[in-house]
Amino acid sequence: MDKKLIGVDLGGTTIKFAILTAAGEIQQKWSVETNILDDGAHIVPDIIDSINHHLALYDMKPEQFIGIGMGTPGTVDIKAGTVIGAYNLNWKTKQDVKSAIEAGTGIKFAIDNDANVAALGERWKGAGNNADDVVFMTLGTGVGGGIIANGQMIHGMGAGGEIGHINVEPNGYLCTCGNKGCLETYASATGVVRVARDMAEEFAGKSELKRMLDDGEEISSKIIFDLAKEKDTLAAMVVDKVCYYLGLAAANLGAITNPAYIVIGGGVSAAGKFLLNQVEDYFQKFAFPTVKTSTKLKLAELGNEAGVIGAASLALAFK
Amino acid sequence: MDKKLIGVDLGGTTIKFAILTAAGEIQQKWSVETNILDDGAHIVPDIIDSINHHLALYDMKPEQFIGIGMGTPGTVDIKAGTVIGAYNLNWKTKQDVKSAIEAGTGIKFAIDNDANVAALGERWKGAGNNADDVVFMTLGTGVGGGIIANGQMIHGMGAGGEIGHINVEPNGYLCTCGNKGCLETYASATGVVRVARDMAEEFAGKSELKRMLDDGEEISSKIIFDLAKEKDTLAAMVVDKVCYYLGLAAANLGAITNPAYIVIGGGVSAAGKFLLNQVEDYFQKFAFPTVKTSTKLKLAELGNEAGVIGAASLALAFK
Repeated sequence: MDKKLIGVDLGGTTIKFAILTAAGEIQQKWSVETNILDDGAHIVPDIIDSINHHLALYDMKPEQFIGIGMGTPGTVDIKAGTVIGAYNLNWKTKQDVKSAIEAGTGIKFAIDNDANVAALGERWKGAGNNADDVVFMTLGTGVGGGIIANGQMIHGMGAGGEIGHINVEPNGYLCTCGNKGCLETYASATGVVRVARDMAEEFAGKSELKRMLDDGEEISSKIIFDLAKEKDTLAAMVVDKVCYYLGLAAANLGAITNPAYIVIGGGVSAAGKFLLNQVEDYFQKFAFPTVKTSTKLKLAELGNEAGVIGAASLALAFK
Repeated sequence: MDKKLIGVDLGGTTIKFAILTAAGEIQQKWSVETNILDDGAHIVPDIIDSINHHLALYDMKPEQFIGIGMGTPGTVDIKAGTVIGAYNLNWKTKQDVKSAIEAGTGIKFAIDNDANVAALGERWKGAGNNADDVVFMTLGTGVGGGIIANGQMIHGMGAGGEIGHINVEPNGYLCTCGNKGCLETYASATGVVRVARDMAEEFAGKSELKRMLDDGEEISSKIIFDLAKEKDTLAAMVVDKVCYYLGLAAANLGAITNPAYIVIGGGVSAAGKFLLNQVEDYFQKFAFPTVKTSTKLKLAELGNEAGVIGAASLALAFK
């Protein structure tokens, strides 16, 4: 029988698991809640227990697996298999994840950060068509991403692929990283709302978004995109500004790595073609001539499953 | 006897050659003039003749070589070994360089563009300390460069590493590529002069640079940097602006690939530490926190020899 892969997508609220074929086809999947109590000390034991429990359930042995791959928040030392500074897991100190999971399951283990793993998933089985050169940007609470060049993930000295921290507006909005004008401050879910609040202050025309903001109603990036689709003037201006920054960042990623695809995923990308087409307009404006035609912008295709699929692909290194 | 490498650096005025050990030590070097007459039809035959002549001179046989590597202007198809659009060579149509040189010398042949090859040279034997992740930017007539990640040159769909066309000022100066605000329009030798002419128009104080420009004297980027070192007010403002754009581009390269080194070479970099320190100031202002400390900015170390050394390193693939 062909050996299988296990993919683990560790998040702040749930841990997703999947058993996949070596070709990336999901055969089983399940999830458990993330128990972040006691400085996250239960997380690794819970992962081990859940894997062992399911292997017993399916009557499978460790020898039947090529390996386990996992995506995690925080800063990952890929070689050592350790994680530090994953604050939504309460992992403040260094966690020796690899050695614990290998000892607990008897299966080889590889790890990378969650954005990189989602990039690997979209590249392998999603919008990336398994191309050698793919950039993935995920627009969620923050803006993350992963860059694959020559078929390999770019880590550099550890912070490679920090797409959210491309500076798109020197002296722009203050970012959580301490700099000003990072892409994340404009194009994350919270960034979109920030742009809206800012532009609303100087906006004098008729706009439902303006009314909602003035009335103190709760707004989200989804509401803003929905209103923009309905041609709300202010909302359309906000979306235009967000897409300007995304298009500029995509153009600069194009000049630097000229990937076959720049794949846009995450919650904000739920706005779909409406978002993509406007990002594309600015990409076409700013990109180097041959990049305009050779790098294609696409929406992510795997949704939530990008994480477990990409995580599982890390274990292909053990083949 | 250990096998050798041949490096060829093809330029618009001279063709430089070197015979190197597999460890990258130059043992012989020579050069010939580039004959660009007759649509550049003499160039490849001249390269073949010069190599064969020198092999005879040193009593060496094709079997004693691992291969020949060459850097060239123009757009290179690395796999096919062809070059197109090298206008300073008068190569307008596709040139089948690899098959001609392999047939003419009996030695395996690899090719890449001149900026990438210089990047490989600086990475291998120069400021890059042979690190896996190195960015090289060359500030000359234009701004070029090469990006090495995970030990491999990034080509993407062909235009990877077009550092000169990172957009640093949306709606800035018009670039030869048709876009506005490319790094090259500010930080190439001609870009620096353009910034000076522009800033001089609105400058009212005392400045030797202002006087020279007003008197219609010929100025160069070297004159501007020299005057800035002597604290000429306008020249210092010009250098500050150029370094701002270089620092911003370096910071964004850092967020994207987080290399061990960003190496700055080319004619403009002759300004040395005076340039580097000011670029570093803006890099520290704009770079992602962990990139500030993990990516080091350095001046190129090999000068003119980067080309032949990096070119030779292409042939290591035949080892």
